[in-house]
Amino acid sequence: MLTDLALRCKASWEQLRIADTHTRNSALHKMADALISAKDEILSANALDLNNAEKAGLSPAMLERLTLTPARIDGMAAGMREVAAQPDPIGSMDRVDKRPNGLSIGVKRVPLGLVGVIYESRPNVTADVAALCVKSGNACLLRGGKEAILSNKSITQALCAGLEAVGLPGDCVRLVEDTSRESANDMMRLTGILDVLIPRGSASLIRAVVENSRVPVIETGAGNCHTYVDDEADLDMAASITFNAKCSRPSVCNAMETLLVSEKVAEEFLPKAKALLDTKNVELRGCEKTRAILGGGVVPAAGEDWETEYNDYILAVKVVSGLYEATAHINKYGTGHSEAIVTRNYFTAQRFIDRVDAACVYVNASTRFTDGGEFGFGAEIGISTQKLHARGPMGLRHLTSVQYVVYGEGQIR
Amino acid sequence: MLTDLALRCKASWEQLRIADTHTRNSALHKMADALISAKDEILSANALDLNNAEKAGLSPAMLERLTLTPARIDGMAAGMREVAAQPDPIGSMDRVDKRPNGLSIGVKRVPLGLVGVIYESRPNVTADVAALCVKSGNACLLRGGKEAILSNKSITQALCAGLEAVGLPGDCVRLVEDTSRESANDMMRLTGILDVLIPRGSASLIRAVVENSRVPVIETGAGNCHTYVDDEADLDMAASITFNAKCSRPSVCNAMETLLVSEKVAEEFLPKAKALLDTKNVELRGCEKTRAILGGGVVPAAGEDWETEYNDYILAVKVVSGLYEATAHINKYGTGHSEAIVTRNYFTAQRFIDRVDAACVYVNASTRFTDGGEFGFGAEIGISTQKLHARGPMGLRHLTSVQYVVYGEGQIR
Repeated sequence: MLTDLALRCKASWEQLRIADTHTRNSALHKMADALISAKDEILSANALDLNNAEKAGLSPAMLERLTLTPARIDGMAAGMREVAAQPDPIGSMDRVDKRPNGLSIGVKRVPLGLVGVIYESRPNVTADVAALCVKSGNACLLRGGKEAILSNKSITQALCAGLEAVGLPGDCVRLVEDTSRESANDMMRLTGILDVLIPRGSASLIRAVVENSRVPVIETGAGNCHTYVDDEADLDMAASITFNAKCSRPSVCNAMETLLVSEKVAEEFLPKAKALLDTKNVELRGCEKTRAILGGGVVPAAGEDWETEYNDYILAVKVVSGLYEATAHINKYGTGHSEAIVTRNYFTAQRFIDRVDAACVYVNASTRFTDGGEFGFGAEIGISTQKLHARGPMGLRHLTSVQYVVYGEGQIR
Repeated sequence: MLTDLALRCKASWEQLRIADTHTRNSALHKMADALISAKDEILSANALDLNNAEKAGLSPAMLERLTLTPARIDGMAAGMREVAAQPDPIGSMDRVDKRPNGLSIGVKRVPLGLVGVIYESRPNVTADVAALCVKSGNACLLRGGKEAILSNKSITQALCAGLEAVGLPGDCVRLVEDTSRESANDMMRLTGILDVLIPRGSASLIRAVVENSRVPVIETGAGNCHTYVDDEADLDMAASITFNAKCSRPSVCNAMETLLVSEKVAEEFLPKAKALLDTKNVELRGCEKTRAILGGGVVPAAGEDWETEYNDYILAVKVVSGLYEATAHINKYGTGHSEAIVTRNYFTAQRFIDRVDAACVYVNASTRFTDGGEFGFGAEIGISTQKLHARGPMGLRHLTSVQYVVYGEGQIR
């Protein structure tokens, strides 16, 4: 039955993929209109979801993610209009090469096809993903968490009405209504139907999809990010970046989890950093040298602290001998997400960039900037931590593939 | 044990990834030199492989693929030097954007990491893949077919000597010496160690890897390619392209397998095409209309003929009502490899390009041009028929990933 739904979704894509820019943008505006018109229905559905979730004993944080308000629905609609305003990623060719035999060969951006997304309890993801997919000419098959099923059904219904209002098939955006674990596993086996599967959510969800999917996956998310304070750093700048990278939003993947400090500046820098971190009661877990400098308030760091993404007001701290110990530590424990160095030294900065194997490498800036919006992509479908297809923040362009277009005049080989 | 080998290979990559262009190019020349120096040993090893393969009753075609000669080894070495002469795909940034907050963000090309390749009995693949990987800064783990094991060991030994001659670790190019089915399965489970796995060879090998791998895969190969002769085609050009696409090398993936002909020109065109195809004794398998025109010599086409990659002097032929039936047929039965239209009509050509969902779409040219060399990539690691990461012929650039480099002056978010 999931296969039937996916096949219908893929078949409907035939119309979406040849729809012009204007039609796809109009669809996004109609989808946004439909969300606003259906606000009462969506809020009622969400109230039922919340009621069920409370009965099931969901945590306050989970309930918060699940909650929709009139303002949040307005935000979803506004987001769709922003995506509509982005440049069309489809149809352009960066260049057309003339070959010696007279063939003109261009590489055209085309949609991927059918994009599957498995996510958790945030119902706004339904609208966000649908907007990015429709804009980039992709059909999408959405499987959200069971807690949000009634909200998601109501949202999807509105989105489909928007599509149909401009003559596109509602089947281009479809929700998997079976939220059992089996339905997620079934999605991972839609080889030849799904062109890509993107998991969004917890580390365990992502790992399960990466391990089990037979469909090509883009791995997103895990961020064990570091900041290395070099012995030639501006220590005030380093403290400011440290505080920002840890404390501005600790729950997200681009927040810093481990601070590495050159032993030459540790005695001067660590108390400076601690003074700032103390204002947010950040728990420090330090190596022996860190504890010798900062004293008993620092928890001794265990081996697992170097590999933990706390997503909380906790920071691991290690004093290192210099650049090479720092980059070796990062390449060993990091998840290849975002890594920063603070230094005044040009050569040290270049060597850090060359040696660190991560999606985003920063010199004298906070890792918190790893984000599609901050990078100028307008909207973001996730942050890839794999190397194939896309790495780092993924915008509309990363939801495309290419097609070689070859213009000839009868050439044979 | 395979895991140990792979971990060693990945660890050695740390040196290759920071090696500059000159060092990597020198390595390729030394590897080529080493192949020439070891010619006698390689030929002796190959003779033993051939001896074993004959005893095992391998087909003449398989034996031919397995055979090395002094000229073929010279060719392998020359190929390495050609790869060395290619532009370096690593380290460049297409552009660096200045963001409103003053951050400069560039996208740098970086190596993928550890590339795994599973292939069959051609020992020259060992040298070709190693050359492409070293040039693009990637370590590689090679698992060739059991028939070629002694040849592959001898070739790899020479290649490693070449790497070591410039101070790079021999571990950057490693052969999996266990050629059991189990070792291939083990490679597919090297999650987090292998950055990509590329199967090269038969359709069944590729399918097995796509279905079972937990490591990201690039699917290569299968080509059920079509040529559509439009009612406004230059029929002499159409016949020439038909003959070339089918007969210039029927065993390869970019050869045509099905000819689609508009009913308006079928009566005039089909006899013209048949006259050429008859010179190579091509077996035609036609629809009813084709048989009505060409007579009893044409075998009736069964349903499976539309989905078969013959790789032989056999051609399926179907008369269609026009462009839309042709593109629907192609999208239903094609493998998304290479598709051609022959037409004089500008609008029909554009519509064909828009509607056909394939890696390469040709107007008035033979599908046989789908090839890294013909497209100007210099060398080719395969032809991707998936949409993620790479689609169509893959050259050095497709063995790379990106890294965002962010230069700041203390920016926080």
